[in-house]
Amino acid sequence: MAFATAGRSMKLYWGSGSAPCWRVMAVLEEKGLGKYDSKLISFDKNETKSEEIMKLNPRGEVPTFVIGEIVINESLATCLYLEDTYKSSGVQLIPSDCPKKAQVLQRTFEAPGFMKKGLEDLGYLYMEGDVNEEEMKEKKTSLKAELALWEGYLKAAGGDYLTGQDFTMADCIFFPVLAVMVRLGLALRPTFPELGKYYETVSKRPSIMKTWPPHWKGTEGKKWLNNVC
Amino acid sequence: MAFATAGRSMKLYWGSGSAPCWRVMAVLEEKGLGKYDSKLISFDKNETKSEEIMKLNPRGEVPTFVIGEIVINESLATCLYLEDTYKSSGVQLIPSDCPKKAQVLQRTFEAPGFMKKGLEDLGYLYMEGDVNEEEMKEKKTSLKAELALWEGYLKAAGGDYLTGQDFTMADCIFFPVLAVMVRLGLALRPTFPELGKYYETVSKRPSIMKTWPPHWKGTEGKKWLNNVC
Repeated sequence: MAFATAGRSMKLYWGSGSAPCWRVMAVLEEKGLGKYDSKLISFDKNETKSEEIMKLNPRGEVPTFVIGEIVINESLATCLYLEDTYKSSGVQLIPSDCPKKAQVLQRTFEAPGFMKKGLEDLGYLYMEGDVNEEEMKEKKTSLKAELALWEGYLKAAGGDYLTGQDFTMADCIFFPVLAVMVRLGLALRPTFPELGKYYETVSKRPSIMKTWPPHWKGTEGKKWLNNVC
Repeated sequence: MAFATAGRSMKLYWGSGSAPCWRVMAVLEEKGLGKYDSKLISFDKNETKSEEIMKLNPRGEVPTFVIGEIVINESLATCLYLEDTYKSSGVQLIPSDCPKKAQVLQRTFEAPGFMKKGLEDLGYLYMEGDVNEEEMKEKKTSLKAELALWEGYLKAAGGDYLTGQDFTMADCIFFPVLAVMVRLGLALRPTFPELGKYYETVSKRPSIMKTWPPHWKGTEGKKWLNNVC
């Protein structure tokens, strides 16, 4: 891929099961940029705060991504940077056609709110240990309403992917979040059949299979979201 | 601006003092697209949930932005859509040069985290009424650390703006959040002199002056953030 990266070497610091890291990895595959150096860090050992990462990313988070002299860490920034810089390489993830482009960007930027409702507001409540049942119930209701919105988007789009027949940036950003939720016990069917079908279709996409979180294979996730629907 | 919008009429639904709305308005001005229809909605009267808005935006939020047949609502999606679609109109807000582009995107996408720390986590705690002093103190410490990061970014950039001498998308996305915090009593000086200078410089930019929240003129904001620094 030297032609595409114009001689710049790429290195990704990532954690297994992190939706933001997965997004970047999926985009790299889709853009035909899958040959990069990578370093798997351990969240359990708090390696995001290692000297090596802190020097590159003062927030001490992953993804941390280096291209030659460039460091870019926010997952959406990295994904959009890769799409814009390697536009003609691999799959075009943001369409040129204005209405389609608008829809893809709209869904792409709704995904962080989805992640907040399902993972930050809810999953992380469990991590704090002392679970407030009433708060938990309220957040589960809110996640269910959010899932209903995405179910409607898929139905209206009428294709295999979030905005129709083409796999786009919106899928790269949204799918990893959905997959983490499923790993945490979220049952999409029977309440959300479109999301169920979408999950299965995208799970089989080569870029997604190749970047599937390695530690998920053969292990079970915590069942934090098993009674949302 | 008919040439730039290719005959598509634009209409923005917005609320005064909303940082996400302000971002879109600043970008429209910078891109020379300042002639659009707009409808000011009232948060106090809960007008974001009006039938007119709900039909366009099922989340019932502003900004809600219509261009011809296109509806795009997430503020970052809208700003990036406008920059990409009207690239050669007005100010170029995302540079073509790769290292600069990466830096602008990185800062642009760090801004939502800054907003979360200052406004969502903290400002909104007050709205709930029953303030937990310990939680409040913790969140203020976290906001102060976040402000220190941005102070460092400005110092390293060494120009008038977040990434150097050029006003970019990062400023359009970041500045309105900073301005809302200042309105809420945040004193940038003497702790953060670079941010203080930045605030003054950007405040005087024509696109920012023209889009300054009208209800701020001649009124005082709540002083929620007056003892952060």
